Amino acid sequence: MIPTSSENIFRILVATDNHLGYAEKDAERGGDSFNTFREVLELAVEQNVDFVLLGGDLFHDNKPSTQCLVKCMELLKTYSFGDKSVEFELVSDPAENFPHLREPMVNFHNPNLNVGIPVFSIHGNHDDPVGLGHFCALDMISTAGLVNYFGRANNLQEINISPLLLVKGKAKLALYGLSAVKDDRLFRLFREEKVRMLRPREFPDDWYNVLVLHQNHVERPPYNYIREEFLDGFLDLVIWGHEHECKILPRESAQQYHVMQPGSSVATSLCEGEAVQKHVALLEINEENCIKPTALPLKTVRPFVFKTVSLADNVPMDVRTTDQVRASLVEEFLEKTVKEMITESLEQLTGHPRQPKKPLIRLRVDYTDERDLINVIRFGHRFEEEVANAYEILLFRKARKTEKACKE
Amino acid sequence: MIPTSSENIFRILVATDNHLGYAEKDAERGGDSFNTFREVLELAVEQNVDFVLLGGDLFHDNKPSTQCLVKCMELLKTYSFGDKSVEFELVSDPAENFPHLREPMVNFHNPNLNVGIPVFSIHGNHDDPVGLGHFCALDMISTAGLVNYFGRANNLQEINISPLLLVKGKAKLALYGLSAVKDDRLFRLFREEKVRMLRPREFPDDWYNVLVLHQNHVERPPYNYIREEFLDGFLDLVIWGHEHECKILPRESAQQYHVMQPGSSVATSLCEGEAVQKHVALLEINEENCIKPTALPLKTVRPFVFKTVSLADNVPMDVRTTDQVRASLVEEFLEKTVKEMITESLEQLTGHPRQPKKPLIRLRVDYTDERDLINVIRFGHRFEEEVANAYEILLFRKARKTEKACKE
Ligand SMILES: [Mn+2]
Ligand SMILES: [Mn+2]
Ligand SMILES: [Mn+2]
Ligand SMILES: [Mn+2]
Repeated sequence: MIPTSSENIFRILVATDNHLGYAEKDAERGGDSFNTFREVLELAVEQNVDFVLLGGDLFHDNKPSTQCLVKCMELLKTYSFGDKSVEFELVSDPAENFPHLREPMVNFHNPNLNVGIPVFSIHGNHDDPVGLGHFCALDMISTAGLVNYFGRANNLQEINISPLLLVKGKAKLALYGLSAVKDDRLFRLFREEKVRMLRPREFPDDWYNVLVLHQNHVERPPYNYIREEFLDGFLDLVIWGHEHECKILPRESAQQYHVMQPGSSVATSLCEGEAVQKHVALLEINEENCIKPTALPLKTVRPFVFKTVSLADNVPMDVRTTDQVRASLVEEFLEKTVKEMITESLEQLTGHPRQPKKPLIRLRVDYTDERDLINVIRFGHRFEEEVANAYEILLFRKARKTEKACKE
Repeated sequence: MIPTSSENIFRILVATDNHLGYAEKDAERGGDSFNTFREVLELAVEQNVDFVLLGGDLFHDNKPSTQCLVKCMELLKTYSFGDKSVEFELVSDPAENFPHLREPMVNFHNPNLNVGIPVFSIHGNHDDPVGLGHFCALDMISTAGLVNYFGRANNLQEINISPLLLVKGKAKLALYGLSAVKDDRLFRLFREEKVRMLRPREFPDDWYNVLVLHQNHVERPPYNYIREEFLDGFLDLVIWGHEHECKILPRESAQQYHVMQPGSSVATSLCEGEAVQKHVALLEINEENCIKPTALPLKTVRPFVFKTVSLADNVPMDVRTTDQVRASLVEEFLEKTVKEMITESLEQLTGHPRQPKKPLIRLRVDYTDERDLINVIRFGHRFEEEVANAYEILLFRKARKTEKACKE
């Protein structure tokens, strides 16, 4: 049953980092990004949302293949177009919101298009403008009327962000977009107070203020991340794209605003953060500026089990053991562990008919002795039928480093 | 005043080889292809046509730049979408006409799009499918709902062409499309009688039969062209894309059918055929299967003057002349000739506000003595302000060859 839409409550489907076209040429995994993006859009329909909000990296590549663009447009056409009526209004000036478009207009105001669930997106670092005339793939699908591409800063000396002012009955949402900018440059601009979020002229305090951006969130000193304290205190919610680990339920920052980090919808690297259960969010915002975020687990995501083992702890060194015996003990142990991980991956099967069943398995192996480095390709060969990334299962690591963030 | 539409007469705007993106990076000429394609679409609106028919090479490149795709989509959205009602019907099975589409459908049947003047196109050799999944730029803009991409042969062992059956009142049009295939392969398929044009099952003789194809037309023995006698005698009109010289008014072939060669809308090579006045055609077809073709001159095309001169005829050889004096006599003569050609180019100015005025000038110079080869770049330098292709004005040629066709 489709949830009814309340006239004074925004219902927004929030997702990010869909990375369409990721590993597109991989016979096994090539369809994963599209498969789950379809699920995201299906959820938007199921949840009867007012619009979809994407936080960048919709495309994995700056210049997506024609196939990737075709598949993306097919999906958007199927789920975003349709007879559902759009129940909110844009009351800000589209010329201020979309200065990069020749005809600044939201697609649901185009009389020649029948848009049911509009999609809004900023660009990420993977799909930012490049080349002749400085266009990006979002320009293309926005020209086709399939998305509303916003938050593009054309002047990188000084960034002024005009919010999309969206009104649904008595609910009022000011949506600020900041597409990906090189972290160190943006860091500097923030420090020099050259990033300004413009407030609505009328009743500036009545609005619920959301910023969506696509930057490093995890600290990468000195300048390669954006500090939460940079962001204006008037904001109510910051939706943070780019970081692929799903931390979707908002937590309060020291600056009062809440931070939601939806994470990617497809694993583009075999790191620990990508193995966390992936979600999108249903975000409800009412006329009292209260929000209700609901995490919606994605059920078409390929199972991914990540584990770290130490050879020292598991294959005790015995000085009397020959190298050859030692190697087979290591190999035996790793093989047993991978088999356990494959079994563990079954727990991630959701029963969704489109979920691919062959898991991603990544076993990080801490070692101390170079002689324990077994051949990763040869090892992978035996798992070719069972594991989607058979030849990249093992990752040997000499010394334990600090945990890294999962971003792309 | 917009011509009225008669309910039993098809009005079709026929154009081909628009080569969008040609010389896109050239500061002077980069906009030419878009500029004239806009004119073509404006003519479609002005002439109140039922649809636009394109004969391939809509794009100059297999992988057009994002800018090129954005510009193309902007134009199609502006002129093809709108409130004009589509007054003809497609009565054939779209699944047979568009087997390469996931959802075979003409865009004016899509309930979410408001199409006023549909555009139909085959692909040419410049914009044929390549790469992953075998997609082309037409797939993209057709997925976006901006064109109807037809005539794509997926099986190159045997080609069966299902016509689009279009009905407007009592007028009945069977439209066969054959997108570009390598000439020698197609030559062989024709000779082996493996190219079949399927006739409508009901009242096969009632239809006016048009084939649009994109192949070499001018003889290039032994196999690199398509012979007119290959094409079925039941055809009434063949619209021949790929050849860039405009020969738009139909002439009768030995096989009874008529042949229309619209030619390109932008000069992509500096050959004689491209200097011929460019046109598109308004093609009217009535219920008696009579046609009325009208050549519509394109007024935004950059002036182009082509001339051949012989040094032997113009700069008489005198054995007593030193090499240096001889060189300056040659240069003087060529400079004078180019200046005359620039003056001549003024006759091609149409007064259209968007026509670029800086002409293309190509002077082919027949020479006999190697010492007469002056430096083309240095020569061009003095015309930089006056000629769009200053550094490519002169083309030296040793022996007179036979005329070549102008195609791309
Ligand atoms: Mn990113
Ligand atoms: Mn990403
Ligand atoms: Mn061609
Ligand atoms: Mn051509």
